[in-house]
Parts: sequence; C-alpha cells; structure tokens
Amino acid sequence: MNILFMRLAGVIKYLGSLVLVPLLLLPISAHTAERPGLVMSKSGIEQIRAQLGDVPLFDASLAKVKAEVDAEIELGIHTPVPKDFSGGYTHQRHKRNWFVMQKAGALFQILQDDRYAVYIRDMLFQYEAMYKGLPLHPQTRSYARGKLFWQCLNDSNWLLYVSLAYDAIYDWLSEQERQQLEQNLFRPFADFISIENPQFFNRVHNHSTWGNAAVGMIGLVMNDDELIQRALYGIEDDGLDVGAKDNDGGFIKVEGQKAGFLANLYEPFSPEGYYTEGPYYQRYAMYPFLVFAQALNNVKPELQIFKYKDGVLLNAVSALLNLSDADGEFFPINDAQKGMSYHTSATVSAVNIAYFNGGRNPQLLSIAEQQGEVLLDDAGFAVAQAIRDGKAQPFQKESVVFSDGPDGQQGGLAILRSGAEDLTLVFKYSAQGLSHGHYDKLSFSLYEKGEEVLQDYGLVRFVNIGQKGGGNYLKENSSWAKQTVAHNTLTVNETSHFEGRYEIGSQHHSELFFADVSRTDVQVVSAREKNAYPGTLMARTMALITSEYFEKPFLLDVFKVNSKTRNQYDVPFYYFGQVLQSNLELETPGSLTPLGKKNGYQHLFLEGKASAASGNTRFSWMDNSAFYSLTSVTDAADELLMTRLGANDPEFNLRRDPGVMLRRKKTADTTFVTVIEPHGRYSPVSELAVNSNSNIAELSLVHDDERYTAVTIEDVQGHKQLFIVSNSEASANQAHTLKTNGKVYKWKGPYFFGELEAD
Amino acid sequence: MNILFMRLAGVIKYLGSLVLVPLLLLPISAHTAERPGLVMSKSGIEQIRAQLGDVPLFDASLAKVKAEVDAEIELGIHTPVPKDFSGGYTHQRHKRNWFVMQKAGALFQILQDDRYAVYIRDMLFQYEAMYKGLPLHPQTRSYARGKLFWQCLNDSNWLLYVSLAYDAIYDWLSEQERQQLEQNLFRPFADFISIENPQFFNRVHNHSTWGNAAVGMIGLVMNDDELIQRALYGIEDDGLDVGAKDNDGGFIKVEGQKAGFLANLYEPFSPEGYYTEGPYYQRYAMYPFLVFAQALNNVKPELQIFKYKDGVLLNAVSALLNLSDADGEFFPINDAQKGMSYHTSATVSAVNIAYFNGGRNPQLLSIAEQQGEVLLDDAGFAVAQAIRDGKAQPFQKESVVFSDGPDGQQGGLAILRSGAEDLTLVFKYSAQGLSHGHYDKLSFSLYEKGEEVLQDYGLVRFVNIGQKGGGNYLKENSSWAKQTVAHNTLTVNETSHFEGRYEIGSQHHSELFFADVSRTDVQVVSAREKNAYPGTLMARTMALITSEYFEKPFLLDVFKVNSKTRNQYDVPFYYFGQVLQSNLELETPGSLTPLGKKNGYQHLFLEGKASAASGNTRFSWMDNSAFYSLTSVTDAADELLMTRLGANDPEFNLRRDPGVMLRRKKTADTTFVTVIEPHGRYSPVSELAVNSNSNIAELSLVHDDERYTAVTIEDVQGHKQLFIVSNSEASANQAHTLKTNGKVYKWKGPYFFGELEAD
Repeated sequence: MNILFMRLAGVIKYLGSLVLVPLLLLPISAHTAERPGLVMSKSGIEQIRAQLGDVPLFDASLAKVKAEVDAEIELGIHTPVPKDFSGGYTHQRHKRNWFVMQKAGALFQILQDDRYAVYIRDMLFQYEAMYKGLPLHPQTRSYARGKLFWQCLNDSNWLLYVSLAYDAIYDWLSEQERQQLEQNLFRPFADFISIENPQFFNRVHNHSTWGNAAVGMIGLVMNDDELIQRALYGIEDDGLDVGAKDNDGGFIKVEGQKAGFLANLYEPFSPEGYYTEGPYYQRYAMYPFLVFAQALNNVKPELQIFKYKDGVLLNAVSALLNLSDADGEFFPINDAQKGMSYHTSATVSAVNIAYFNGGRNPQLLSIAEQQGEVLLDDAGFAVAQAIRDGKAQPFQKESVVFSDGPDGQQGGLAILRSGAEDLTLVFKYSAQGLSHGHYDKLSFSLYEKGEEVLQDYGLVRFVNIGQKGGGNYLKENSSWAKQTVAHNTLTVNETSHFEGRYEIGSQHHSELFFADVSRTDVQVVSAREKNAYPGTLMARTMALITSEYFEKPFLLDVFKVNSKTRNQYDVPFYYFGQVLQSNLELETPGSLTPLGKKNGYQHLFLEGKASAASGNTRFSWMDNSAFYSLTSVTDAADELLMTRLGANDPEFNLRRDPGVMLRRKKTADTTFVTVIEPHGRYSPVSELAVNSNSNIAELSLVHDDERYTAVTIEDVQGHKQLFIVSNSEASANQAHTLKTNGKVYKWKGPYFFGELEAD
Repeated sequence: MNILFMRLAGVIKYLGSLVLVPLLLLPISAHTAERPGLVMSKSGIEQIRAQLGDVPLFDASLAKVKAEVDAEIELGIHTPVPKDFSGGYTHQRHKRNWFVMQKAGALFQILQDDRYAVYIRDMLFQYEAMYKGLPLHPQTRSYARGKLFWQCLNDSNWLLYVSLAYDAIYDWLSEQERQQLEQNLFRPFADFISIENPQFFNRVHNHSTWGNAAVGMIGLVMNDDELIQRALYGIEDDGLDVGAKDNDGGFIKVEGQKAGFLANLYEPFSPEGYYTEGPYYQRYAMYPFLVFAQALNNVKPELQIFKYKDGVLLNAVSALLNLSDADGEFFPINDAQKGMSYHTSATVSAVNIAYFNGGRNPQLLSIAEQQGEVLLDDAGFAVAQAIRDGKAQPFQKESVVFSDGPDGQQGGLAILRSGAEDLTLVFKYSAQGLSHGHYDKLSFSLYEKGEEVLQDYGLVRFVNIGQKGGGNYLKENSSWAKQTVAHNTLTVNETSHFEGRYEIGSQHHSELFFADVSRTDVQVVSAREKNAYPGTLMARTMALITSEYFEKPFLLDVFKVNSKTRNQYDVPFYYFGQVLQSNLELETPGSLTPLGKKNGYQHLFLEGKASAASGNTRFSWMDNSAFYSLTSVTDAADELLMTRLGANDPEFNLRRDPGVMLRRKKTADTTFVTVIEPHGRYSPVSELAVNSNSNIAELSLVHDDERYTAVTIEDVQGHKQLFIVSNSEASANQAHTLKTNGKVYKWKGPYFFGELEAD
C-alpha cells in the first residue's frame, strides 16, 4: 500500500481548497466486482429494460443505434492491416469498429441479445490475433506513432471505447477468454500507449487525456490497479527531456509539470471550466474526461471526482455550451474547424453525464432535446426520462467572462451577448492555449445571431478529408492561421505576437483590466497585453452598446497602443460578403501582389488601397441579407487596405476571404477608435433595402491621455453618446472626474457611458 | 365604332388558331357599372365578409395587411417632391404609397371601415395637387423619365396599383371628387406614360406591359374607352424611328412589330408560357399581365383573355413555377438577381389569379400554402377557401422542355430534373431575350436540391440598394455578366457570341436538336448554335444520368465544335467552394493578372494554370458539405485554368467567384466530353467524410465523326456505360447502327445509352 498512499498524497496538492483528506485514507483498490460498471449499472439496466417503449428520446436513440449496429453486423467484421492516414480506409474502418463495438455492448446489455456479444467477442479476438507482433503504423508523421492508427491518440480512442464494450460483455465471456484478451491485447495495448510512449502519455495535453482515460478505463474493467494508478498520476520516471516538442510544435515536457489524468484535469481548465486550447479541442477532450470520471464515480465513488477542483468538470460542460453561437456552433478559438457544434456526439455525452452527475440542471435538458439523442446508459436514460416528464428548461446563454489558466490567473476570454444573441462579441486575452494556440492577443470575432460578422479564420485543415494532406494540419495553418495578421487584432511592423514563437508565447498571457456585464445598455471588457511586442503596450476596450437611437446593438472598439518606438500598426477586420461603399478614393491595382513576404502577409493579396479620411473613415458591406458599417477615427496619413486571402497558396488550401485593414505608419502612441455597426436588412424576394445606411454622423476621439480615453458617437439625428474609459484604474469603486467637451463628468468605476445632452 | 372594329380585326391576327370571330363582333364598350369590379366583385365581397374568421389563410393575410396599413395611417401621409433614384427616400416613399393605397382599398371593401377610404382619398388629393405642373423627374438616366419616379416604368407601377385603390373607393367618392381626380390626375397621368412617352409605351417589353396595363386599368375604372383601346392595341402613330435604343441597349421599335397589351402578351411568350427575358423578369411582368387580365375578364368577359393564344397566360404561370429550383428560387437566366423566388408578392398574385381563372388546379394550392399569404380579393379568397377545405396537392416539378419565341420556333430552354430535384440541369438554347439577354448560347447551370453546383452569375446590380449606383444596373453587367465567358459555355478566341452585339444577337436563336425526358435512367437534351460564331457550328448534348453504380445522378456534357478555322476554345465551369484536388501539376503565379483585356476576360484573374492530363483531367471540390468531381477527356496540349472573378472592378461590384476553365488551342474540329459528378457528403459535426472520391475510373471518347459521337464512362468497379449521340438525325424513329469498341450497336432514335457487358 505504500505506493498507493504516496499517490494519494499527490492528490491533495491538486485538490486545492477542497478538503478530502479523510477520504484519501480509504484504500481505493476496493473494487466492486459488478460489471457492467463503467457507465451502466445492473440496477440501471433493469430500470431501462423495464421502461423500454415508454421513454421516447431513449427509444429513438436505441432504435437508431440498433439499426446502425445491425447493418454493421450484416457487413461482417473487418480488421484490415493498418496503413492509412485519417482520411483513408484502414483508419476509417478501425475507427468505425471502436464505435460499433461500444454501441454493440450497450445493445447487448439493454436488449440481452447474444448476437451483439458474439460480434464484439469475435472482433476482439481478431484484434487479439493481429495485435501480437503488429509493428508501428507505417505512416511516420506523428511524434507518437500508434499501431492501429498513425498516432497513439487514435489507438487510445480505440482502447477507451473498447473498454466500454469489454465491460458490457465481461460477465458473458469465459474466464479463459478474458485472460487471453487481457494478456495478449488489452494489457500490451495499454502499456504501448503509456510506458512505451511516455512522450504521448505523460503530458498535459488533450492527447494525454485520451491516453490516461483509455488506460484507466481498461484498468477499471480489468481490475488492474497498476493501470488505474498510471492513468490517474502518470508515469513517474518517464525519461523525457524538458523542452522536447511534438509534430504540432507543442512542448512535450514542461519543467515541474505533473502528468496523468488528474494533472490533465487540473492544468488546462480554469476554475470556471474554460479549457485553454479552446472549445474545439475542449469538446474533443470532454469525452474522455467525462466518461472516465463517470466510470471512476461508479467504481471509486470515494474519489469524488466530480467535486475535484470545485467541480471543474461540471463547470467545463457549462462553459463549453456557453462557448457557442446562437446555432450551437463553437467559437473557433485557436486551431478549430468551423461548424463543430454542441450537436457532436462528444457533447451529447458531456450533457448527459453532467446532467446525471451535476445536480440535474433542467437547462441541460433543452440542449439534449436539440441534440435529439441520448447515451444508451444510465446517464442518457435519466436525461430522456426527465425530458419525457417535461422538466426541460431553455438553456440561458448570457455574457460570460472566463478566466484562463489552472488558477484563473492567465488572462481569459469574454463573451458579451446583447439581447437574444443578436450581437455576440468574443474577445480573447488568454494564455497561449498550448500547441493549438494562435498568436492573437486581444483579438475578437463578432456574431449576429448564428452568423459571423467579423470572423476568426479557424484552422487550415480539412479534418478526415484524405485529399487534403491526409486530413491533417496543412502548412498554411502555421504560415497563415496561427499568425497574428490572420486575426482581428493589432500587428506591429508586420511581425506576429511573440515573433510567432511558441517558446515565447507560452510563457505569457494577456491580462484582464476590467469587465462589466451588469448593464443592459452597455457591456464592457478591457484587457491588456505587454509581452507580445516588448516595449509596446496594447490596451483594448470593447463595448457592446444597445441604444434606443440605433436599430441594432453595435460594437465600440477602443484600441490604445503605447510604444517606445515608432512603428507600423495594422488592424484588420475580416468581414464577409460584398463591399457596398467607402468614403475614400480607392485605388485598385491592375494585378494583385502579396501584401508582404512573411508572418501571414505573404498570403494576403492587396486588392485596393486608399488614403484614409481626415475625421472618419467609413466602409460598408452587405452579407446574409444585412448591412454593416465600419466607422473609424482616422487622419489622412492613415491607410485603408482591402485584402483578399489566397496568395502563395499552391494547393488552394485557403478560403479566398476578404478583409479591410487600417494601417497607421511611423507612430509610437496612438488609439484606434472604431465602431462596427450592423443595420437594416435586404430581401432578394421583396427587393426592399431597409435601413441600408450607417446611423453614425460622427465618431470622435475627444480625449486621450494616460489617464482617460473618451469617445463620442453622434448619430444622424444628432444624439451624442459619450464613452470614457480609465486607462489607469480598474477598480469598480474608484471615483473619477474628467473635463471634456467643455463639461465635467463624474462617475465611479473604470468607465462612463451615457448620453450627452444637447448644448 | 369604326376604330373599334379595326382594332378588333387586329386581334384575329394575334389569336392564331383560336377562333374567336363571333365574340369579336360584340361591342366591348358595354361596361358593367359595378364597382369595385377589377379584382373584387360585389358578390365576392359579400362572400368574404360572410366568412371572415372561417378561412385561416385569408384571415391571416387580412390581419397582416391590416397591421401594415394601420401602421402607415398612423405615420401620416407623405408625398415628397420626387428627387431620388431607386434606393432613395422619395422613390421608396412613393412606392410604399402605391402599395399602401392598394391594400387600404381592399381593407375598405372587406372591413367597410371609412378610415381606409379617407386615407386613400386624402392621399390621392395630395397627389392631385402635386401632379399638375410636376416637371419630369430630376434624374436623367432613363430613356423614358417619369414624374414621380426616375422612369416611366415606376410611374406605371404607381398608376396600376392606384387604379385598384380608386376602384375600391369609387362609389364612396362624390361625383365631384371623381371628376377632379380623373381630370387632374388620372387622365393626365395615363396620357403622360402613353402618348407623351411612346418610346416607353409602344414597345414589346416588360416596361410597356406595365404601361399598357396601368393605362388599361385606370381606363376600366374610369370607363374610358379611349384609354382601354390604347392599352390593348398601343398608339397607332407613335412617330418612333425603327432601331432607336433605350438606356439598357434594347431596341425601342422593331420593324413590323405591333404594340399594346395584346402584342406584349403575344410576342414575348412562347406557347408553353416561357417568357423570352427569363423568369426574373417574367415574375415581374406577370403581375400587370395577370391583374389586367383578371380585370378584363371581369369587366369584359367577352374578350376571353385567359383563352388568348391557347391560354398562354395560364401556361405562363405554370412555366414560371417550373423555372425555379427546389427552394422556389428562379433560375437566373439573363439579367436576374439571385434569390428572387416564387414567394414574391407578384407570384402570389399570379398563383391566386391562375387558380381562380384556370380550372382551379389543386397543385397551385400547395404553392400558395408555401407562400403563406393570399390576395385580399375574390381570387385570394378562393385559394384560401380551397386550402382550408384540404384540396391542396403537391406541385409536381418535372423535366420540361420550353420553346422560345411567339410561335415556339426560336430555340428554347430545357430543365432536366433527376429524382426529387436531386440534380437539376438548366440548359439554354433560346433567343436573345430582348435587352436583358446574355450572350450565352448553349450555356447551362446545375443545381443539387436548392443549391447551385455550377452557377450562372446572374446580373451585376444591387436592386434598390442606393449605395450601388442608385440600385441600377452597374457597368460590369455589360462588361462581365452579359459576356459569354461569364457563363458555362464555349467562348471562341476570347470573343463573345455575336461579338457581344445586341443587333446581331437579336436576329438569331439556337436550335433544339432533340430532347427526351421519358426515361428514368437518362434524360437528354441536345441543341445547336451556328450563328454565334459565323463559320463555327456548336452542338452540345447534355445527359442527366441516374445509374445504380453511382451514388448520385451526374451530368454528361458532350460539346462538339466544328469550324472552318483553327481557334482557341475556352469552356469554363463556375463552381463554388473549396478546391480539393486535381491530377495536374498546377502552377500558381506569385501575383495575379487578368486573363485578358476585353469581353469579360479582363475581369478574371488567373489563379493557376496546368497542362491537362493525357487521358482524363480530374478536378474536385467541396461545397455545402458535399463533394463534386469534374472529369474531362483531354490531351496534354490542353490547359486547365483556375480563375477568380474581380479584376478591373474598382467599385467591388463583382463577387470573387471561382471558375475552372478548359482551354484547347489551335483547333478547328473537336469535342469536349466532361462529366460533372456530385458525390458524398461531409459533416463538420461528425467530421466524417463519406464517399469523397470520384466514382469514375475512366471517361473515354470512343467514336467521333460527323455521324456519331460515342462516349464510355467506366466506374471504379469496372462497370462501363456507353452513350452514343447521332450528329445528323434527330428523329425518334430513325434506326441507327454503329460499330464501336469492337461491337455493333443498333438502336432507334437520336441517342443510345446502356451498360456495356464485360468482355
């Protein structure tokens, strides 16, 4: 028991404020012998079987899964020799196998039809026969090659799902069959993805989470404490060098960092449950987190895993759902394929498990209703029952201010929502986000309902589409998508933040200055970044304003820059749709050349260029049958550049998306003040253009020094609104006084917003 | 009565085969005195009033219109001094006024609430006061400037709608009020848009249709035979010169052409009801055609207007509905703004009137259900009643082969539909289409369900969006949208068909060679064009093929060209979405230059270029979560060009759409054989790519001479299909024999299609 107690002592460190010391003295090797026991229980199965036909969403999910598995059984069992990348046949077949085995296991338990158990057993024995002597996968791209797949990550996926299938038929198999499978397949498989690949298993990374959970899950079924310990706490002596990197450029070992499932749960999540890589990877990582937690909760309830770090796992589910637009699509923070949404099966699991283990929040039920399916286990059944019983309540998405970092001290991400997601601002001032992070401090994206108004590009990858580099990351992901200029933020001297270097970027994070989402007329978030460009301080304040004088909410962007040197500042806005008008004299070149040579600029064609207006530069466009105007305070020395993505893209991997960029040259200290204003609508059916013009008569920077920046927004009817932000004091209680526009303003807290009375 | 009889004699000529001579002897001046009488009748109103609350769709439409009109009454009456183009305030206000007056008239009759009559009267008297002495509209762009609007067209719209409002309150007004309005407003207004603007009124053109109908409608209310005659038959001595053109480049007077409503009804419609300008203008023109016809049918039933030219008006409604994609959006033939659909109010009228006067076709009711509203008149009530009574049947869209030209002898347009609009081909071999015609003989577009796979660009205009050239046609409409290279057809030597000259184009039309839509496995249409390039014969055969060996239907395109000279042939395909792969070595230039200097080529940037493959050139892309592959028979001397629209577009009026172009140089006779193949699907939620590769192993041109062209399509499983088209004989009964591929094939009719047995 020595090793066990040593490990448990380790937990105390992670658990922080949560006092669990008494529990830790319990020997955790006291397994229940009940199987299935991971996500189903004998009593749960009995309940389900008793109510078959009475719980519509469960019955529908069951029918769908049954049809799918029956069709697969019809096709026969195929376990081809591993050969292909993600898009290819052998990859897809083995991937399909793991899903089908897991589902067949659930069907076997619920329907008690031996066909499903036979199918799983026969397939497992084909794998057992193949696994012994199976060499590394022939594709060599990964830093941690698997055997069934090109990377250990997918091997881990396989083992995790197969653990559930094995759990389901464990009692049905003979002792001899179990021994053969465990000795020749499961144990070697678990060892391969852990002790034989510590560079994969022993990190804080979504890859490792899968590895940890897979090893832990099979350990739970096999009642193998060594594997469970390894899963929870990592490999003690992994022999890895600090500073080594994976094929995505991420660090494998960081000085002083723990490993194993608990470390992976502690490190990447902030207390509110924001996952540092962003929601696209969070939804992917949530499944192993939650399914292993569910299994631990069943088999080792004494661990109180759902209370770990103040309930971070349950917070994470709520955070994930909040990190989506009005259509449920996740905001593409860092590397993220657009279109991924909370309808994905991983999020079905997350919602089901969180409901079952997290106080049965009725708002989760409305998400489950939208998802239209539930898990075929105890959690899914509880959800379907509650929906049947009319307990669902609408999921309320509100403005949220997430911190980043394990202790919430590494910047964060704010989502400001106006009305029923009429306008949603996503503002990023987080940490680097591990190897999937982008160099885009203080960047933002903007949504109107579920549509992108100003986009974050996302990643350059066509996941699982073999024609595009085997479905893997493409080189333009580094040369474009990760670069600062690919984002709606400031690029100084055509160089990305932190020189685009992961080693530097991962040492730093931006800082929240203040956020206030308590008012209905204005919501404000302000953050700062001082390390992206040493010697240059960036402070961006974004306000979502709802005014009776404006048809729709709009965004005020006050971006203050102070530098020791004179620089070129570029602030792009990546819109969609068609240009309507600007108040500038655009020059459009006869032939298009790239805007620069590196740092992403080599991918932008310059489609047009103009000297900015003295006063306000205006630019309007039309997209999705609505109108948008950008109004920015400029002087004649500024430039407006019209860009189009697609230069130096020989494989046509990039979308040909447009952008408009404000450029200010040879400047040290300056403030960019811009309003992004959605307005009106157009119908190609009625051909009516309603409210197609900007409502802003003049945007003015009326005061700007080290203490305050003040902006007025005058609409076409002459109403004037004043916004003042303190540049030095974020406290909500601090009193301020500023004389501007010939009047004295007094207020409390870091900003002032209100209407100016007519003179 | 002499003039009247003379006019009626003219009708005989137009009526063609329809024997109406006895009716023509009736004096058509025998008005009923009943008012309202145009689209409502006293008995109809009684019926409607008796069933208020019992006919859901009518009640809903009534409630909606009432809310709209009540809100307008609240706002007060505004008749500003005319000043603006289409996008501007005065234009929009006067336009709104005509709609609101018309609707208020219907409400007055149905609800018998004097408020509505008062509102109309007061507004009419404001117009009456303004009209006297009102100069021409200050905007000078139109060939026929209006007074309230910048063009007589919109003045005519106003008068037509106002006729309905006047009809509704006619009896309610005093004799003295009527006299004042008629003398000072209606009669001068009607004269202005007719005898003072014969260049507008006396054409065969959608503009004139509006003018004719407006004059006729007000004539019917006023019981003014002179106006009615003018409306029906035009102005006898208009003093116009043959060959004069309007500001869109259309001819104003053509030698020997009649004028007036009947001529406008006779000339532009083919017997099946295809309108030579295309569906976008047809839906616009349908309203005046149908509402005037409805009024004539009520007031002058002896004219049997709905039987005119074998019922062409009713055929036209059916044709219009068939000229839409699966979402009801009209195919953008010629100048056409995309997104216009049968949900537009003009089509609501068309469907209601056609149902009421055209044998009460129950399929029209399902369209009306989709439209979700009905007219507030006798026709609308009949539709709503029938829907309430459960009479609606699904509208069946099938493959249709329309002829063009008044006698159906000027080529045509074919729509081949596979399955439930799974794949829809629109193939154009029509006449020029008047001034809105494009130079695109033998062009096509392709739809999968409601989505464009290969597009027709449409027009370059932002209708009613003032920021874009006042909402009018932009110059890129001529320099790009009308040019041949903007379409999916052949451009020879970088010159548009007919040199892009309207004078030449309007003298010619393509010719249908044959069409067969009777089979389920293959539907074929073949057409020819010999005048677009004198000395060059173009023959294009398109087959929509549904095969058990292919997941989805696909398109086979066999484009045969014979020329006396050696030429450069360009065949573009305007796809959407992202490039996946080609089997060529693409060179992508570091900077983009326009592909040419004129005829549309100046607007295309060259993004990439490759020598074609010897055998099959393959190109695949992804759009709307589906995959598409183009496979073409090429040799190494051919080129594949990747293009992007947007060069020489200083105002950003063009969409940056992509294209892929096959180029064959220094060739006289040749045949382009291409398959466009939709396949598979991708979900960004499941991240599964299903069937992402082409199913074609080899496409071969196995025989090609002046008598036959034969093509084989071999799929990846080795099944081979053979398509043979006769190049000389279109008859369905002709027997053919061809020895190809070492076998002798015998068949009847202009083409053969079938599977080849394995050797």
